[in-house]
Amino acid sequence: MIAEIIAVGSEMLTPHRQDTNSLFLTAELNDLGVQVAFKTIVGDHLSRLILSIRIALTRTDVLILSGGLGPTEDDLTREAVASALSLEIQRDNDLIAALYKRFAVRKIPMSPNNEKQADVVAGAIILPNKNGSAPGQFLDVVYEGHRKIVILLPGPPKELKPLFENECRRRLASILPPRFIARRFLRIALVPESIIDAKAAPIYKQYEDVETTILAHTAEIQLHLLCAKPSLAEAQARVDELAEKLENALGESVFSATGMPLEEVVILLLGMKELTLATAESCTGGLVAERLTSVPNSSSAFSGGSVVYTNELKSIFADVPHELIERHGAVSPETTRALAEGIRRRTGASLGLGVTGLAGPGGGAPGPDAERPIGRVYIAIADGRQTTLTELNIPGDRERIRWWASQNALDQIRRKLL
Amino acid sequence: MIAEIIAVGSEMLTPHRQDTNSLFLTAELNDLGVQVAFKTIVGDHLSRLILSIRIALTRTDVLILSGGLGPTEDDLTREAVASALSLEIQRDNDLIAALYKRFAVRKIPMSPNNEKQADVVAGAIILPNKNGSAPGQFLDVVYEGHRKIVILLPGPPKELKPLFENECRRRLASILPPRFIARRFLRIALVPESIIDAKAAPIYKQYEDVETTILAHTAEIQLHLLCAKPSLAEAQARVDELAEKLENALGESVFSATGMPLEEVVILLLGMKELTLATAESCTGGLVAERLTSVPNSSSAFSGGSVVYTNELKSIFADVPHELIERHGAVSPETTRALAEGIRRRTGASLGLGVTGLAGPGGGAPGPDAERPIGRVYIAIADGRQTTLTELNIPGDRERIRWWASQNALDQIRRKLL
Repeated sequence: MIAEIIAVGSEMLTPHRQDTNSLFLTAELNDLGVQVAFKTIVGDHLSRLILSIRIALTRTDVLILSGGLGPTEDDLTREAVASALSLEIQRDNDLIAALYKRFAVRKIPMSPNNEKQADVVAGAIILPNKNGSAPGQFLDVVYEGHRKIVILLPGPPKELKPLFENECRRRLASILPPRFIARRFLRIALVPESIIDAKAAPIYKQYEDVETTILAHTAEIQLHLLCAKPSLAEAQARVDELAEKLENALGESVFSATGMPLEEVVILLLGMKELTLATAESCTGGLVAERLTSVPNSSSAFSGGSVVYTNELKSIFADVPHELIERHGAVSPETTRALAEGIRRRTGASLGLGVTGLAGPGGGAPGPDAERPIGRVYIAIADGRQTTLTELNIPGDRERIRWWASQNALDQIRRKLL
Repeated sequence: MIAEIIAVGSEMLTPHRQDTNSLFLTAELNDLGVQVAFKTIVGDHLSRLILSIRIALTRTDVLILSGGLGPTEDDLTREAVASALSLEIQRDNDLIAALYKRFAVRKIPMSPNNEKQADVVAGAIILPNKNGSAPGQFLDVVYEGHRKIVILLPGPPKELKPLFENECRRRLASILPPRFIARRFLRIALVPESIIDAKAAPIYKQYEDVETTILAHTAEIQLHLLCAKPSLAEAQARVDELAEKLENALGESVFSATGMPLEEVVILLLGMKELTLATAESCTGGLVAERLTSVPNSSSAFSGGSVVYTNELKSIFADVPHELIERHGAVSPETTRALAEGIRRRTGASLGLGVTGLAGPGGGAPGPDAERPIGRVYIAIADGRQTTLTELNIPGDRERIRWWASQNALDQIRRKLL
């Protein structure tokens, strides 16, 4: 069985807005064993919409439409589906009553155009929408001699997602052969995709029943494993087996085998070892701290830190001597070590992190920093006995350099804690 | 004239990847006066691709295809276009020579499948690609009695964008009536969309020749104005006039009339007044500092600050007395004022910012904080003479609460500097 997703709405044909519902819908359909063969985006334009629906009905088995179910003149999905299928539209009295009640509860008068949301394509099952005023509709019809499933869903993701999960998943599953899905999600920091793939491909290619997707992000590679079987235990066993082999082949560079973000892994490891971390960031400007504190309940492991953007603050918050900065520069191994050691002493944390660098677009200040290239980053980690230092040369723009530096700093702390 | 964009690639029919080229292409086409009527996403599947191309040729005047021009068996766009238009494919000798040269320069042997990238649809203008191995192709053909423009572009944005800008824009413009575009981009923080629209709609509706788009983001509303005229001066005059009226109606809440991000406005205003800022962040965990330091050359206005996630660090970095925190709680007006004042004194900055709050999902620590609800945020700004304090109750999840708090803090500093 193959599916088409039609996203309805003129705003998605502008440079500003994109259909995102189809990513969620594709994941759901894939879980049910349905592949998405086409996606179409069409504006609020009746004849174009009818045309798109007819085309979808001729080339796929399942058609999901998102959007165009509101009360305005531009909301044409109900009409277009009825027209494409040569079915009547019926105004549902129970839905009208529910609409009036919904407005009454909110003490807003209901304008008559809202009644349009009670229009139902003849034969459709009404899918009640707890999060909005327009219900979804589910049609199981015959079109030119073939069985077709046509589902109408409201556009807002907060309405569409629960409607699909609560009302559509079960109905589609009852039509399709039973299938159970198991997944694993491996994440690797700082290794190029080509190196990961060279190691991983010979392994995952032996698992033809597991779908392996490699995704490259800035300073991170993700391996998504998915297996569908008639029983969950079978599917789980296959993905677990493959995940274990991949982990063995890729070694310590795998920071998570369950999809956990790097910052959460670091917080978890610190907590397990009952250690704390404090940061002194220059070029990353708080990005490492921001990532660590995005993890709920991170305060037991991450004490906090300082953003020492100027030389004065490097002294005020991390006791870096002025002379040291003057002699070696702000972006130097010496200053970065002193930051890591200083912030550790000052805060009483178990580990101190220092990050300095030139993120560009401008170069270093006059003096020793002027000779250093844009993209040069130093990372130091102090544990009270020793201080490690890493020099990086990161290509790319300011945003990329800062992100890569934060990723490297977090991954180094993770490796230190293993 | 209307256009269709077809994005070719099976990876865009998975839950993991989305077509993004079409946003850029839509902006470019709109600038030329061409509306996008349909977008289609289709996999690397010959018959489906041919079908999609034929449908597009029947319903639009301009067809742009992105992707499927590489050397692998899955790269089928050239073949599909030729088949849909009943044209021959010709292997171009100059392109083959260029391919061999490209590989020779990089000292990599070229596998024979790469020659496929020298295939040209009969009659197509070859668009040289400086950033990749597959050139684009531009066809000006008659299909079923109608003139059609068909453009084949490589999928990687780094290749597609310059190819469109350098090779396609001019060719399309020569076919279309001349048009000049002027734009303005107004940004407003923290005001709900409904309030903005109630004030703005009566104004922009009087400018039917200016296309006004309202976009809502977290804690920010954007107004995009676009006007096309036969001369640039005319177009510019219209958008400027409308922008001025909108600014007058919306007042100080407009933080930028040129699209500048809020953090950059704050850095600019601080620089203009020769003032500096330092931050002491608890619940935002470095987000305000990270945003400010994302602006190049921000160090002259933003000294830095501290992430005072624990109570100890509030004392160590901003001299907040332990007794004050114990008596009033970490998330309290008193502690937040003390943070703003303390960080200002400690760093010698002109302005000190203190932010505390409960971002959730867990509640406050035992004691006074336990009574405060999730979403409660305090923001204090100290200038040496007085300290202002704001209490917020922000609905939503951890990410939203932190973003909204950072937006509010930055906007308050902006307003103070006006």
